Amino acid sequence: MSELFNLQLSDEFVPTLELVKRFIEKEIAPLEEEFHHTPNKDDIWTLSDRQSEIIEGLKAKAREQGLWNFFLPDWNGEGVSNLDYAYLAQEMGKSFIAPEVFNCAAPDTGNMEVLAKYGSPEQQKQWLEPLLAGEIRSAYAMTEPNIASSDAKNISTTAVLENGEWVINGEKFYISGAGDSRCAIMIVMVQTNPDPDAPMYLRQSQILVPMDNPGVEVLGPMHVFGNPDAPHGHMHLKFDNCRVPESNILLGEGRGFEISQGRLGPGRIHHCMRALGQAELALELMIKRGLSREAFGKPLIKLGGNFDLVANSRIEIDSCRLMVLQAAKAMDLLGNKEARIYISAIKAMVPKITGEIIDRAIQMYGGTGVSQWTPLASMYTGNRTLRLADGPDEVHRMVVARAEIQKYS
Amino acid sequence: MSELFNLQLSDEFVPTLELVKRFIEKEIAPLEEEFHHTPNKDDIWTLSDRQSEIIEGLKAKAREQGLWNFFLPDWNGEGVSNLDYAYLAQEMGKSFIAPEVFNCAAPDTGNMEVLAKYGSPEQQKQWLEPLLAGEIRSAYAMTEPNIASSDAKNISTTAVLENGEWVINGEKFYISGAGDSRCAIMIVMVQTNPDPDAPMYLRQSQILVPMDNPGVEVLGPMHVFGNPDAPHGHMHLKFDNCRVPESNILLGEGRGFEISQGRLGPGRIHHCMRALGQAELALELMIKRGLSREAFGKPLIKLGGNFDLVANSRIEIDSCRLMVLQAAKAMDLLGNKEARIYISAIKAMVPKITGEIIDRAIQMYGGTGVSQWTPLASMYTGNRTLRLADGPDEVHRMVVARAEIQKYS
Amino acid sequence: MSELFNLQLSDEFVPTLELVKRFIEKEIAPLEEEFHHTPNKDDIWTLSDRQSEIIEGLKAKAREQGLWNFFLPDWNGEGVSNLDYAYLAQEMGKSFIAPEVFNCAAPDTGNMEVLAKYGSPEQQKQWLEPLLAGEIRSAYAMTEPNIASSDAKNISTTAVLENGEWVINGEKFYISGAGDSRCAIMIVMVQTNPDPDAPMYLRQSQILVPMDNPGVEVLGPMHVFGNPDAPHGHMHLKFDNCRVPESNILLGEGRGFEISQGRLGPGRIHHCMRALGQAELALELMIKRGLSREAFGKPLIKLGGNFDLVANSRIEIDSCRLMVLQAAKAMDLLGNKEARIYISAIKAMVPKITGEIIDRAIQMYGGTGVSQWTPLASMYTGNRTLRLADGPDEVHRMVVARAEIQKYS
Amino acid sequence: MSELFNLQLSDEFVPTLELVKRFIEKEIAPLEEEFHHTPNKDDIWTLSDRQSEIIEGLKAKAREQGLWNFFLPDWNGEGVSNLDYAYLAQEMGKSFIAPEVFNCAAPDTGNMEVLAKYGSPEQQKQWLEPLLAGEIRSAYAMTEPNIASSDAKNISTTAVLENGEWVINGEKFYISGAGDSRCAIMIVMVQTNPDPDAPMYLRQSQILVPMDNPGVEVLGPMHVFGNPDAPHGHMHLKFDNCRVPESNILLGEGRGFEISQGRLGPGRIHHCMRALGQAELALELMIKRGLSREAFGKPLIKLGGNFDLVANSRIEIDSCRLMVLQAAKAMDLLGNKEARIYISAIKAMVPKITGEIIDRAIQMYGGTGVSQWTPLASMYTGNRTLRLADGPDEVHRMVVARAEIQKYS
Repeated sequence: MSELFNLQLSDEFVPTLELVKRFIEKEIAPLEEEFHHTPNKDDIWTLSDRQSEIIEGLKAKAREQGLWNFFLPDWNGEGVSNLDYAYLAQEMGKSFIAPEVFNCAAPDTGNMEVLAKYGSPEQQKQWLEPLLAGEIRSAYAMTEPNIASSDAKNISTTAVLENGEWVINGEKFYISGAGDSRCAIMIVMVQTNPDPDAPMYLRQSQILVPMDNPGVEVLGPMHVFGNPDAPHGHMHLKFDNCRVPESNILLGEGRGFEISQGRLGPGRIHHCMRALGQAELALELMIKRGLSREAFGKPLIKLGGNFDLVANSRIEIDSCRLMVLQAAKAMDLLGNKEARIYISAIKAMVPKITGEIIDRAIQMYGGTGVSQWTPLASMYTGNRTLRLADGPDEVHRMVVARAEIQKYS
Repeated sequence: MSELFNLQLSDEFVPTLELVKRFIEKEIAPLEEEFHHTPNKDDIWTLSDRQSEIIEGLKAKAREQGLWNFFLPDWNGEGVSNLDYAYLAQEMGKSFIAPEVFNCAAPDTGNMEVLAKYGSPEQQKQWLEPLLAGEIRSAYAMTEPNIASSDAKNISTTAVLENGEWVINGEKFYISGAGDSRCAIMIVMVQTNPDPDAPMYLRQSQILVPMDNPGVEVLGPMHVFGNPDAPHGHMHLKFDNCRVPESNILLGEGRGFEISQGRLGPGRIHHCMRALGQAELALELMIKRGLSREAFGKPLIKLGGNFDLVANSRIEIDSCRLMVLQAAKAMDLLGNKEARIYISAIKAMVPKITGEIIDRAIQMYGGTGVSQWTPLASMYTGNRTLRLADGPDEVHRMVVARAEIQKYS
Repeated sequence: MSELFNLQLSDEFVPTLELVKRFIEKEIAPLEEEFHHTPNKDDIWTLSDRQSEIIEGLKAKAREQGLWNFFLPDWNGEGVSNLDYAYLAQEMGKSFIAPEVFNCAAPDTGNMEVLAKYGSPEQQKQWLEPLLAGEIRSAYAMTEPNIASSDAKNISTTAVLENGEWVINGEKFYISGAGDSRCAIMIVMVQTNPDPDAPMYLRQSQILVPMDNPGVEVLGPMHVFGNPDAPHGHMHLKFDNCRVPESNILLGEGRGFEISQGRLGPGRIHHCMRALGQAELALELMIKRGLSREAFGKPLIKLGGNFDLVANSRIEIDSCRLMVLQAAKAMDLLGNKEARIYISAIKAMVPKITGEIIDRAIQMYGGTGVSQWTPLASMYTGNRTLRLADGPDEVHRMVVARAEIQKYS
Repeated sequence: MSELFNLQLSDEFVPTLELVKRFIEKEIAPLEEEFHHTPNKDDIWTLSDRQSEIIEGLKAKAREQGLWNFFLPDWNGEGVSNLDYAYLAQEMGKSFIAPEVFNCAAPDTGNMEVLAKYGSPEQQKQWLEPLLAGEIRSAYAMTEPNIASSDAKNISTTAVLENGEWVINGEKFYISGAGDSRCAIMIVMVQTNPDPDAPMYLRQSQILVPMDNPGVEVLGPMHVFGNPDAPHGHMHLKFDNCRVPESNILLGEGRGFEISQGRLGPGRIHHCMRALGQAELALELMIKRGLSREAFGKPLIKLGGNFDLVANSRIEIDSCRLMVLQAAKAMDLLGNKEARIYISAIKAMVPKITGEIIDRAIQMYGGTGVSQWTPLASMYTGNRTLRLADGPDEVHRMVVARAEIQKYS
């Protein structure tokens, strides 16, 4: 299908892209460092007053300018195509707080999409509306500590219907965003059919669980390379006879896998888009540092194999960008399901390459590259984690390989 | 420039691409093996009668169907854009003789472009017309044995004007196509200004030298991994007081570098396009072999890391394709000169990756993979050579790096 | 020199190696987790009571068994050869606290060697004896924030002799161990000759500065991928008219570079030895995890390319081990200076490969691999830092390349 | 076992190693080019008179000096340990004809070992003696065209006992050395027990077949990257009711697998040893070329990432050498069977790395690197083939991985 190769930003979004770039540069960048350096010392899971002031101020300004909720491809006519969104997300990836400022931060984006697509009118009113307004935040509880969760049928958290309520028991971990005190709602993947002989992909359901439900116990934050990543947090949760109304189920019993299929595509591609922005930032930092420091009588950038590293980084970033754009286009043209091979391809490709580029930038900085003085250290660990989140590279390569081999079988 | 991301085949070439694919599959493929296995045993530099019959028959048929001289982007209105040509060239890359069948083989393509762009009417009549008609073949003599020719100012073959004739002296090697007895004309890069203080890029000229000029001595074929690559041949030539009329110069004295700049872009990109076709072929062969052989109770394709190799190959080919298409688009939009960074990027990227994919296919075949029983062995050595031809990878990475660093200097 | 290939542990150390292994396994391992999980919450730079109890208990026991101060190759007849030490250090590398338990932790080892070799009797009495007894700890202040410190002549912290005192001014950062409240003494690399025309390697000196000197200001801890790495700490220090007696200089004015040459060899090789232990641990963890988790009906270890990863890891670890042992042997046979090519070779090789092996283990663990539940996360970031500490890989490759090219020049 | 780390050349072989080095340098090197450039034009499978003169002259001289048949570790007290042989083989690897000059060329070495170990006195008299004397040459026929021969139980060439004769039917290919007109004898791996339920490793036998047996049909030479590799040749053979006396079986019916296990170890390790010599040669050529050519105002060796390539090559060669030496030591200490993990490790490691180093040298040479003007082109293709010969890398990695995982199962 030759249209799959038209990866051009649509004309109407050319000015939007410019606005987003300028907003990040003029509005967000000047406040970013202050945001990170004014945490709430008493309660790391709650923004400090200054942090709230910064983020809410930026959100209000962004919303006013219509730079808001870009991610929704087909809801209420406000949305953008995946292709156009890819261009925007790349830019947002250059800042840690930009995604939230434009109300385009994970996992809220995925949750909003799910609610928009599959939520009942009541569910949408209660949770989707405040999410779209940026008033609350949300989490998505899928990964479990005791199983290889890349195989969905391993899900072991159970939900049983008792007296018009779902009773949920089990453990989840790495539940991103569940630490933030603004997180109000969580979508939980559960097993609702215990029969091992039932069709494997009809045994799971997704259920809405408010964070303040007394059956939800926060066992603690999972660290990411030693950091609790507050206030966001990747929490370890226990569901202990956690009860929610029957109506909290999304779409219907046994349709959890179906929902997650629709959800994971965009989530994965958004990660890759933002990763591209990070790679661009890393390359820029690497070159600037290499130009400004000298050793052995030359700027570092001219020493040894550094030219090769710069060239390879540029070539790799451009390759990744085109692949990400094409995956986005495939989602637009073929739908999330048909596009899954494209998405797996970039999920296996982009974070790996991005990580190598950040690694090179660190090497150019020396010790400073792993310190709190540059964003590289958190880019490095964050990006490393991305190779595991939403399916490890290995599983995505398997998806791509199977499809390829299938052509000749 | 957002148009740089529209990499779609133009509508009018959709049927042409189909015709080319089908022609290769139906007309060329059935004769390809016979062509390679009926060489002229008495004179390896001349096609055997059967080879002539095959190639001329195919050429006539292709020309009849209008599948001819695609490469010329802007000559006589017959040409195609670089982008559209990229799609065609990929397909031609899957067959060793297809490029010649469609009169799109190197180095004739480059020579025809140069003659079309810079040749005088007389030069065009004498040499361009028979080339466009596929009646003769040609060579391009640039590389020299005793210098690092990636640095153009190293050119040491000289031409001196004496009595209305250029007198050429020096050695050239790896002159591809100069072995073929049908090769009638050669464009030779010479130094015409011996003054070392003259502007470095105005000291070279390009001169037309008929192959049968008595001053041209063929010292012998350069081997490529042990093969003379007959009848094409990569000849080692000596110019010994070789005399040609003053009018044989192209464009004018001192403009040799300018011509080569215009020429090398398309040459490099055509190589990369065909390499992509080879990579696709290698992946196909690898999978088919992996499905058809068993060891340890399983088809080879399911053993060890083979799934990863298939996935990585698919991802890499798709990345290379998009990069090549974008470089072609850049040539269409920006011109050869402005597009040179894009071209260097793919020249440094594509043959390297293609080589790795062919390597994987060989590994799946075992000994057969290096034998005469599959095309993989000659794909492997041919592709390896491509990392040196038209500038080694190192020089192309330097071009990309410089441009990138320039942004911040 | 054929003896360079005898890498066998000396017979007398065969039982010692066994004792060390057993001590780590029986005495240290059971307490390691508790040590890490009982920090001092009020003052992260001071061990908690429980931590002190654990570490001092273990140190006493180790010392009693003669497992103490192995590192000193030639001091007081207590020491071991570098080769024998390499075998011991590998084992210590499998535990974070083992090096300290055996009084073999960096940077104390290097400082003790320097004091043993170059210290005056007074300096040895005051600082070396308590260090050898494990009563105090120490730091080594070389790296500076504002220069590329891999080029020693860039050192900008100055020391000027005034009235029988050195007056030191400047900044240092990443001063490892300077956070620990037990750190009592620091060796500081300074420039003592401001004349840019003086011989470049005679302009630096090393001076002893007690941590409690009022001219030493701790600006704060440098983070390592977000962690302050307490209580060890990698401090950012300011010397503000810091005054110490003239006699605090080591060896003599202008001999700082000479001292650091002697010091860096062992320091680098110790890092590599311990890194090997970490790589072995990572491979063990990877396999155990791969055997214990299932997905798609098989243990993870049997999926995809995991066999290849295990094989490559084993091959790479064994290669690194032999190279490290040979570098140690070279130090024993040739001396630190002549052995520097060997040392640079392993410094450029080992942490890079070790990092890749830890990366593979993380990938096998999924999210748990980056969490606080396994040692992999801190192994990963610690090892990444090693590629910068004591000279970045780039500089070490340059050393190896120069020596190699020299052979033919 | 700590002795496994003593990789020192034994004292008695120190002078031998020097003699071998000097013999190659003084006697062989001056004739090597002439040998390669005076082939027999009438019959490529027979040495020309000049070639015979050169090789037989060198052999006589070598034998006279006692530099002969080094490879046999335990035959007649003439042999050397595998470790000492490793040092010698490295040197021989730097010349294409040196192995034959010292009567240490494959596959004769393996065949002689087998005959020495398993041959009957008659077999030894008839075939081993002339082989040890360098009077005839031999081949080993194992690989088959229609199966994945890395799985020994796939062997499909059959031998049936009829009237006191083995009647052999089937096809073999890549039978190295079988092209040479001096090749007199061949050891053929056959299936002698057709029962699929019989123990899998007791169904094969090895049988001596003289090359001039009328049942042996040479279908033609297998090419290696386009070359017939004459006069050695890698022949494609057909056994068409080929009859040999019952007594031609080696060791006994059903013991073919046992014999091949004993044989393959040394064969593989010899390949790796020689590959090391080739890698050293490639690095030397790369540096010399890089020092002698200039571009952009500098010797090539100083451009771009070339220093890194030199450093990495040196580090990798030294790593490979230590690993090869340790594998040889393991064979000496543990026997071929127990040492197989070590051997698989180097077989998966060394040719891959050696290939990369040769590749870098080619890149430094430009076109000349793939031509007949340097040995690099045939080193490149020969080394590539080594990654398939005697088991592809994949199978050797599997062996290493299994043994490693076994430790924890």
